[in-house]
Amino acid sequence: MPTPSVELANRVTALRSAMRRVDLDGMLITSPKNVRYLCGFTGSNGWLLLKHRSSVFVTDSRYKEQATEELQHARIVVAGKERLSEALLRTRALGNLSVIGFEADSLAYDTVRTLRRLFKSVKLRAISNIVEPLRQIKSPSELDAIRKAIRISEKVLAEVINDLRPGVSERDVAADITWKQRRAGADGDAFPPLVLFGRRCSLVHGQPSSATLSNRQVVLIDLGCRVDGYCSDLTRMVAFGRIPAAIHEMYATLLSAQKRTREEIRAGTPTAYYDEFIRQELDQSGLSRYFAHALGHGIGLDIHETPLVSSRSNACLAAGHVITIEPGIYIPGEIGMRIEDDVLVTRDRSETLTTFPRELIAL
Amino acid sequence: MPTPSVELANRVTALRSAMRRVDLDGMLITSPKNVRYLCGFTGSNGWLLLKHRSSVFVTDSRYKEQATEELQHARIVVAGKERLSEALLRTRALGNLSVIGFEADSLAYDTVRTLRRLFKSVKLRAISNIVEPLRQIKSPSELDAIRKAIRISEKVLAEVINDLRPGVSERDVAADITWKQRRAGADGDAFPPLVLFGRRCSLVHGQPSSATLSNRQVVLIDLGCRVDGYCSDLTRMVAFGRIPAAIHEMYATLLSAQKRTREEIRAGTPTAYYDEFIRQELDQSGLSRYFAHALGHGIGLDIHETPLVSSRSNACLAAGHVITIEPGIYIPGEIGMRIEDDVLVTRDRSETLTTFPRELIAL
Repeated sequence: MPTPSVELANRVTALRSAMRRVDLDGMLITSPKNVRYLCGFTGSNGWLLLKHRSSVFVTDSRYKEQATEELQHARIVVAGKERLSEALLRTRALGNLSVIGFEADSLAYDTVRTLRRLFKSVKLRAISNIVEPLRQIKSPSELDAIRKAIRISEKVLAEVINDLRPGVSERDVAADITWKQRRAGADGDAFPPLVLFGRRCSLVHGQPSSATLSNRQVVLIDLGCRVDGYCSDLTRMVAFGRIPAAIHEMYATLLSAQKRTREEIRAGTPTAYYDEFIRQELDQSGLSRYFAHALGHGIGLDIHETPLVSSRSNACLAAGHVITIEPGIYIPGEIGMRIEDDVLVTRDRSETLTTFPRELIAL
Repeated sequence: MPTPSVELANRVTALRSAMRRVDLDGMLITSPKNVRYLCGFTGSNGWLLLKHRSSVFVTDSRYKEQATEELQHARIVVAGKERLSEALLRTRALGNLSVIGFEADSLAYDTVRTLRRLFKSVKLRAISNIVEPLRQIKSPSELDAIRKAIRISEKVLAEVINDLRPGVSERDVAADITWKQRRAGADGDAFPPLVLFGRRCSLVHGQPSSATLSNRQVVLIDLGCRVDGYCSDLTRMVAFGRIPAAIHEMYATLLSAQKRTREEIRAGTPTAYYDEFIRQELDQSGLSRYFAHALGHGIGLDIHETPLVSSRSNACLAAGHVITIEPGIYIPGEIGMRIEDDVLVTRDRSETLTTFPRELIAL
């Protein structure tokens, strides 16, 4: 579904306000996700020059048809054999602007040099992080897409858990997840699925390997897909056959800490608070030292976006944020486990969007 | 398979020669593919500072174990809660260097500003395109990986063609390709597979949709996978049921032009020559105006890399280049077709690495 035009208009209005606050006549949006967010273009090569009274969108000839279909409110410029920046200049899209911002946190140094050489009449100002704060607050259509992506991932998770058999490899299960998510209507994976067996679950960034499943192993599955560009992200654990009581206990501790943390979530609180909160919960069993990554992150058009839910973040939660809550326990060479849910911050408290059962699934 | 250490050593030696030619004491490599090419690190967050007598590699704590496993000749620095640039500074990795190059074509403007603020004692110089020319000439292990990737894609192509049935959707076939390539041992897709039916074949950048296959349609399949990071890329056409003789004729023209172009390929010739050559071939049937993209591109760690095979390129072919030759004919709303092979330029002439039959496959 394309983004409703009233939502696109709201985003543009919000960005224009932000531009006024930092005295910009124009803002050149070049990162593909921000371009998509502001004008709905889903191709890989397009820049949006947002001015206060109008916008100009520039792309190359491959995307001419697509841009005409997807964009409603911008003038469309199609570059010939020239660069996008040259096409903007040629068509006098800069008009009589005096200060234009550019996305300094993503635009390559060389491209900025080219812009400065070409756009002699304007002052180009490095701007970071001007669209991302807007993207944190999800609109109805964005929430709808995230919910759909979650439903697909949960359906696929149930199927692949049901299909687990001794001898299957981590790679095979991962390939099945990708296939099933796409067949279920997703645009594709939100990230390459993580599937780890037994001790390999302690590898926080372990990639699916040819390791095969044996009886009495735990299984970690971390998956997500995209619908209309928006991501889902969830992690569940399976006990394949009988596993030691100590692991069950550890899992119960993690689950209870994760649940209590989710229940605490509300708008207005610094995300760092929850990182501290869950570490205290885990420390009642001496386990926080095995939890070596951030508690969570925002999801949206990017699988990792702000706000970061971490001791290093100074972000505060606000109604409309969608964040992951994903504590883990990783004891190298022994055991690893993680439970991950997607949580919508609401005005009153929060809603956990993922509904897949969180108990250690016994097979 | 990890890259043989003798090959890594050759690459580093070649880069040091290039650094001497432009008077650099050090070169900071930050783009992930270039980092992988020079030191073998396959993670997503690592920088390599190459000096003339030694190298320093810096990553974050998530990749400590992986870096130790994958890197042989660099000192490894693990960043704590600081940035990679701060970790380099803290550990005195800069030593007494006076001029360090950075990858200006990919490094973000803000990151360069941070480096300039932190690295006060050194002059940072914008360098573009210093590793990419080395990457054009493929080593034995790189060719081996490309050949393996091609074999997998060809096997999968045969299978999905065999499975084509009326009513199957473009998305379904694309999902099957992804799944089968991974199950056959690929790291994953080199790019999301393109599958188009009937008139949709004329959409040069069309994405697989829910459109379903009917009798008397042509099918375009463009697929590729990665093995050890290296890409394959090929396109074939299928006639599903009886199609007009005019399309068969057009296809025969395209195939003959593509074959003659491949036969012409040899080291020392500008790539622009082949673009001109094939357009002349196609123009004997008045078809070159329907061929609206570049003739081909290099493949390697990137699916699109230099040399570009195009009228806009001033590159010359050299032994060891692997390029695609992929002419197409696109008549909007009527018909589209493309034939794509991967060609290795050798000292004498060339070798077409893709071996899948090029005739219009009749089903």
